[in-house]
Amino acid sequence: MSTEFPAASAADRDAVLDRFVAVIPAGGVGTRLWPLSRAAAPKFLHDLTGSGSTLIRATYDRLRPLANGRLLVVTGQAHRAAVCHQIPELDTADLVLESEPKDSGAAIGLAAAILYRRDPATIMGSFAADHVISPDTVFRAAVLEAIHTAASGERGKIVTIGIEPTHPSTGFGYIRGGEALDVAGAPSARAVAEFVEKPSLEVAEKYLASGEYLWNAGMFVAPVSLMLEHLEANQPELYAGLTEIADAWDTPARDEVTARVWPTLPKIAIDYAVAEPAAAAGDVAVVPGAFRWDDVGDFAAIGRLNSAREVDAVTVLGEGARVFTEGASGIVVSDTKRVIALIGIQDVVIVDTPDALLVTTKEHAQKVKGAVAALKASGDTDVL
Amino acid sequence: MSTEFPAASAADRDAVLDRFVAVIPAGGVGTRLWPLSRAAAPKFLHDLTGSGSTLIRATYDRLRPLANGRLLVVTGQAHRAAVCHQIPELDTADLVLESEPKDSGAAIGLAAAILYRRDPATIMGSFAADHVISPDTVFRAAVLEAIHTAASGERGKIVTIGIEPTHPSTGFGYIRGGEALDVAGAPSARAVAEFVEKPSLEVAEKYLASGEYLWNAGMFVAPVSLMLEHLEANQPELYAGLTEIADAWDTPARDEVTARVWPTLPKIAIDYAVAEPAAAAGDVAVVPGAFRWDDVGDFAAIGRLNSAREVDAVTVLGEGARVFTEGASGIVVSDTKRVIALIGIQDVVIVDTPDALLVTTKEHAQKVKGAVAALKASGDTDVL
Repeated sequence: MSTEFPAASAADRDAVLDRFVAVIPAGGVGTRLWPLSRAAAPKFLHDLTGSGSTLIRATYDRLRPLANGRLLVVTGQAHRAAVCHQIPELDTADLVLESEPKDSGAAIGLAAAILYRRDPATIMGSFAADHVISPDTVFRAAVLEAIHTAASGERGKIVTIGIEPTHPSTGFGYIRGGEALDVAGAPSARAVAEFVEKPSLEVAEKYLASGEYLWNAGMFVAPVSLMLEHLEANQPELYAGLTEIADAWDTPARDEVTARVWPTLPKIAIDYAVAEPAAAAGDVAVVPGAFRWDDVGDFAAIGRLNSAREVDAVTVLGEGARVFTEGASGIVVSDTKRVIALIGIQDVVIVDTPDALLVTTKEHAQKVKGAVAALKASGDTDVL
Repeated sequence: MSTEFPAASAADRDAVLDRFVAVIPAGGVGTRLWPLSRAAAPKFLHDLTGSGSTLIRATYDRLRPLANGRLLVVTGQAHRAAVCHQIPELDTADLVLESEPKDSGAAIGLAAAILYRRDPATIMGSFAADHVISPDTVFRAAVLEAIHTAASGERGKIVTIGIEPTHPSTGFGYIRGGEALDVAGAPSARAVAEFVEKPSLEVAEKYLASGEYLWNAGMFVAPVSLMLEHLEANQPELYAGLTEIADAWDTPARDEVTARVWPTLPKIAIDYAVAEPAAAAGDVAVVPGAFRWDDVGDFAAIGRLNSAREVDAVTVLGEGARVFTEGASGIVVSDTKRVIALIGIQDVVIVDTPDALLVTTKEHAQKVKGAVAALKASGDTDVL
């Protein structure tokens, strides 16, 4: 770790890093990756890059040099065993199990509230369990700048890490950067002028050309005290409920209080509950990240990300699959050991699991969500 | 049966039908239908039309009113149990098991030689086990005309049943009809002017327009004596070997002689060994068949033939499959109970079996043969 972070003095760095706790929200089924990703085995429990690690384990390993084992994971009750298997280092008190999904406001807000009770000076950094990032060193350098920025000034800052866009994506929200901030150890930190919703292609092209916009990847680093201050101001009901659970968390009443209060919490995204009002109040900064980032939103992404086998023009993910092609191109994701023969078919996406098969095209890979809804409607929920 | 065959007098009909024995060559893996059809479960052992019968059983049932149980089946040793299961009526002495494939000359020639030893007056009718025909009554009316024609004159005729072409196919050989023959009970019988090989599309269109050509479906009815006469003249080595086996067939030496002689026989199609030279000698006639005929040459054929379920624009064959579509068209043949979701993909052909999956298009369905060759070359023979 000694040579990885040259900025700021070593003493400053150590002091600020001691306050840092990584929070990993591991929610979402990853419906667009069905049938590989499904309720019983969501995206974060898969190795979608052929790296040998599941996405959640890779996320943990990426944060470990910064957090030094200080970690909170928020996930669904159904994934308790799988998450503990992936991160055996995780203490039970640091695993928040949602009895039902309540969106990111409740998940990240509860993490902030629990961490505040333990140490009000905590700086949390929230990073989704199912994104793919490389190289890790560039990521950590950006997070370190974000930590310094979060710790700066009297009340600190909520610091988002914005991704330098590589194409005019219409699938992400954008962050418009404002004036440069003068933070020791964070030379690239800027104020956030505004968050903007997913744009049209025309607007996205303008954003890209302007050089002022970054992708909003949902990553942020912030003093838990500042998070809770905005949460209380904007979502008093949610704040009250989270406070009640957090007060009981490190006591014998944890399970009883959580079981009672969690189902009553309002569903709201952390963006609306905290980030956007905080930005309007001038409390949000951004650190640009020059690392490669992918939220693996569909199977086309898997094709892009994979260093897996290439059989002619077909990317093959899955160790057991025996794939034969003739005049074919596309992606095969296999969870079986079957022989798969592709003949004269282009840009195809095939996902082969023991109980469900998806055949689509790269162009239509985003529509998988609709098929899952149709399956649910028909009662074929055994494969969802 | 009494009203089905109005032609010829009842006495003539009975006399000639008493000489008729059906021969069913059940060879060929049906490679173009892989992975549904494969070495261990070739095409003729599948119900490819959703009728509830395998193709070989349907062939047997179609011929039964004419052959009245007089039957010879020629198949590979590997299919002994399956064929006996499909046709429990079959006597062991009427099941010819090939220790290795030797093409149709040896298979049909041996049937002729065995039947000749039993009764030199026999008229054989050879019909592949893996074709789809309807309606059966129209088929039998044509076969009955062919039997009368085969029995006509001094030496009889080799009578092929030609299919009235419905489109300018380049996948079949053609038969050019000659002058009408004057055969009692066979008003539509004509001489065969010539057999022609699979034509180009341009030539096929001319054939169709001329009205003189029929498809060669490889069906024929002939006195075994005339078959053997031409076989001896054109393929003396093959004839000698088949005679040696036939002499031993209904004796205790059957297995020993067959095992010794069969592997030494030359490989040649019955077309070259008998039909074409016999046509040149003026010994071949043709009866047109107005029935629907399909050799189920590829998966596109299965789509055509099937009265199976339609899910939107997708034809689904296989009772267990749960198919969901969104903007998709094509054919799904399923041997499993998996959920299959097709999204935004057109004219696709999907064949889903427990150990192998084929994804191709209707346009490329004919190329499956090449994929099977590639699998064989790679050593993945477990799924062939």
